[in-house]
Amino acid sequence: MIKNTLPLSELLTYLESELISVFGNVDDIRVNNLSSPENASPDTLDWIGLTAPNPQEKAENSPARAILAHPGVRYSEALIQSQKILILVKNPRVAIAKLGNRFFVEKTEPGIHPSAIIHPRAQLADSVCIGANCVVGECRIGRHTVLEQGVIVHNGVEIGEQVIVHAGAVIGTEGLGCFRDEAGELTKFPHLGGLIIGDKVEIGANCSIAKGSLSNTVIGKGTKINSLCFVAHNCIIGENVLITGSSMLNGSVKIGDNATIYSNVIVGDQKCIGKGAVVGMGAVVTKDIPEYEVWVGNPAGYLRANKGS
Amino acid sequence: MIKNTLPLSELLTYLESELISVFGNVDDIRVNNLSSPENASPDTLDWIGLTAPNPQEKAENSPARAILAHPGVRYSEALIQSQKILILVKNPRVAIAKLGNRFFVEKTEPGIHPSAIIHPRAQLADSVCIGANCVVGECRIGRHTVLEQGVIVHNGVEIGEQVIVHAGAVIGTEGLGCFRDEAGELTKFPHLGGLIIGDKVEIGANCSIAKGSLSNTVIGKGTKINSLCFVAHNCIIGENVLITGSSMLNGSVKIGDNATIYSNVIVGDQKCIGKGAVVGMGAVVTKDIPEYEVWVGNPAGYLRANKGS
Amino acid sequence: MIKNTLPLSELLTYLESELISVFGNVDDIRVNNLSSPENASPDTLDWIGLTAPNPQEKAENSPARAILAHPGVRYSEALIQSQKILILVKNPRVAIAKLGNRFFVEKTEPGIHPSAIIHPRAQLADSVCIGANCVVGECRIGRHTVLEQGVIVHNGVEIGEQVIVHAGAVIGTEGLGCFRDEAGELTKFPHLGGLIIGDKVEIGANCSIAKGSLSNTVIGKGTKINSLCFVAHNCIIGENVLITGSSMLNGSVKIGDNATIYSNVIVGDQKCIGKGAVVGMGAVVTKDIPEYEVWVGNPAGYLRANKGS
Repeated sequence: MIKNTLPLSELLTYLESELISVFGNVDDIRVNNLSSPENASPDTLDWIGLTAPNPQEKAENSPARAILAHPGVRYSEALIQSQKILILVKNPRVAIAKLGNRFFVEKTEPGIHPSAIIHPRAQLADSVCIGANCVVGECRIGRHTVLEQGVIVHNGVEIGEQVIVHAGAVIGTEGLGCFRDEAGELTKFPHLGGLIIGDKVEIGANCSIAKGSLSNTVIGKGTKINSLCFVAHNCIIGENVLITGSSMLNGSVKIGDNATIYSNVIVGDQKCIGKGAVVGMGAVVTKDIPEYEVWVGNPAGYLRANKGS
Repeated sequence: MIKNTLPLSELLTYLESELISVFGNVDDIRVNNLSSPENASPDTLDWIGLTAPNPQEKAENSPARAILAHPGVRYSEALIQSQKILILVKNPRVAIAKLGNRFFVEKTEPGIHPSAIIHPRAQLADSVCIGANCVVGECRIGRHTVLEQGVIVHNGVEIGEQVIVHAGAVIGTEGLGCFRDEAGELTKFPHLGGLIIGDKVEIGANCSIAKGSLSNTVIGKGTKINSLCFVAHNCIIGENVLITGSSMLNGSVKIGDNATIYSNVIVGDQKCIGKGAVVGMGAVVTKDIPEYEVWVGNPAGYLRANKGS
Repeated sequence: MIKNTLPLSELLTYLESELISVFGNVDDIRVNNLSSPENASPDTLDWIGLTAPNPQEKAENSPARAILAHPGVRYSEALIQSQKILILVKNPRVAIAKLGNRFFVEKTEPGIHPSAIIHPRAQLADSVCIGANCVVGECRIGRHTVLEQGVIVHNGVEIGEQVIVHAGAVIGTEGLGCFRDEAGELTKFPHLGGLIIGDKVEIGANCSIAKGSLSNTVIGKGTKINSLCFVAHNCIIGENVLITGSSMLNGSVKIGDNATIYSNVIVGDQKCIGKGAVVGMGAVVTKDIPEYEVWVGNPAGYLRANKGS
């Protein structure tokens, strides 16, 4: 893969509002990639996170010509001597993320791969990107939304704009809410509801997201769900919720805005997780969780207030 | 999508054996969908579940013309005045499920999607439905069985009649039973066994179901397994077992008829779960569970007897 | 499917270094399959594991003509009378595995299925086997590696030799490491790193394996990962690690050689699991685990030393 090589000045212009100060002569310096601190090379932009130990020493020993750091790092004699460029920002990790997303992430071009199978009544915005081997039912998909390879979208799904669905995810499956009759046989409750996915949502690889049974399942704007999660029928997930992987929301779960659900959490039927709450990895949620509280364990219990991330 | 619109009288005829009484004039009333109680409209069939609070009030305030309820609701003056139709049954949720499955669920037409890739020696009944991008090995599939989109069926699998396999599931994978030699290297135990799936089984989206190593893995008639479950080699699952999502059965697990395994349960190698037992969500099963007992926790322990669902 | 039928003498020649003794006349005996002890028939090779109760009785009652057992079984009068062949080895299960893998497992022929979609700049060794409906990006894949049906390999992945990726797995997904800004909105950390998979690795059905964010995710030689596991960005997994299904490794987890992670384990961000350590099923790992220790529970705690498998 060809890496971008870019003038450092262009990167700094983009970061402008975050810059505290820039030391050294930026002219003629080009950057050909970002790097993790342990893999820096002369041509990458190195960085030092807020919690890294010995930040001054790290900056002085970096092989990179340009280093992004927090104001705890000084433009020392050693940095001057070695003609390094030191760029100070409030949060180097955030700055690196912004630069990476803007300049170094491979862009997905709009278009529908010829192998994708699209329902004739699917309503697709012009700028969608639909990957190889996707199967797209009678659904609606908004602008700049990306379905990666092998994604399956069932009938009756509405997907907003700038959504990314990662490879292999199944969107709009029927749940399996069942009841037993007296003979023990299982009858499935019908799934006649839909699934509505808001703008800028992201759904991880090999996830399964169910439609509602009689009403809809809803995933709010900006929510990010990592790989191998299962969202059952009729869940109502708020905005900017983060679910970090292998988690499972049972039927009719409600999650408030800005909540964070760590890995492999299970939330029981109809449980509510309040706005800004945090659920620790592996927690089994059997009770409602109030707003801005952190809960952990099996069964999950209160750990502390959530004073912010 | 075009919704069915049906004479209410046709629905009542189908429900006949369950009807306790019907109040109001059913002639000329048509229903165009079912609804969840919070989304009822004049043209949907509203319903009031057994445990809903204030059922009488709910019935009187429903915007729907026809309401399905339990005998705790009276055909009151208010209902008479508003010319509502009140249909009493023992269990409204069950009645709604039956109506939904019979009249409102989209039917899958038999047929093999042209993009499906079928082994020349696969034995498929005439009425199977095989979705887009399925890959079907040298296996046997019974009548009226549905493979949704992107399902993969390996060689050596037998699938009964009226089975539904949801999108993205992998049926008949090789397990990874391994042993370590003295140098620490892993050798895989071979998988020469098969996988037998009984009639009316349902397997959720993105599940993985393994073949047996030397004998077969077996899933009994009427069992329902929700999304993202993993059933390892040589499991013997009885009839009418419900597994509600993201659960994992290790090798050679045995599960008795009518057992219920809630979400994200893990059952250890060779453990047995008795007939009619219930395993709570997130349980880690390290011991055999006797018949008709409810177990929960990590490690799972006895909670109470299971007196019925 | 046609089963192999093979002269027993050929099997014994292959096992040579493991044989302790062979009783009875092997000439003209053919074996048409292996069997689990409960399904033995005259033409299969039966076997008796190290821990099976009543091994002598089992051998004498076996319907098979040839029986593989440990030296606790004698070539008794009953076995002589019935003209059985008794083959003694140190570990019958290991011997059966070796025979199965060598003689009875279906071989995968090299070749690229015509339905597979391969990036024009993918670098594939001549002898790879790429199954139906795979989507293979700009990556490198070594000799004798098998991608089963429907596998998706993203750009920037390197896969070694003799690797097996089971059906539906997604290799090289972008993780979803995010941070929240003050308004609660989530920004994704970019994923510019790669994914390096060593020789002889096996990855189970419907797994999701993420690329690194700025550096690489690495899976060491000989490691086996069963179905439905999620390995997040920047994990560094050693050699010969066994992960038995539905487990989840968060970002930057490190796992030492020869460790064993049982089912549905969750390992927290940046945690280290030492060489030869064992993590019990359902464990939630919130601390580093030292070498050669066995940990279990939620949160995981020390159980005992690991004196070997």
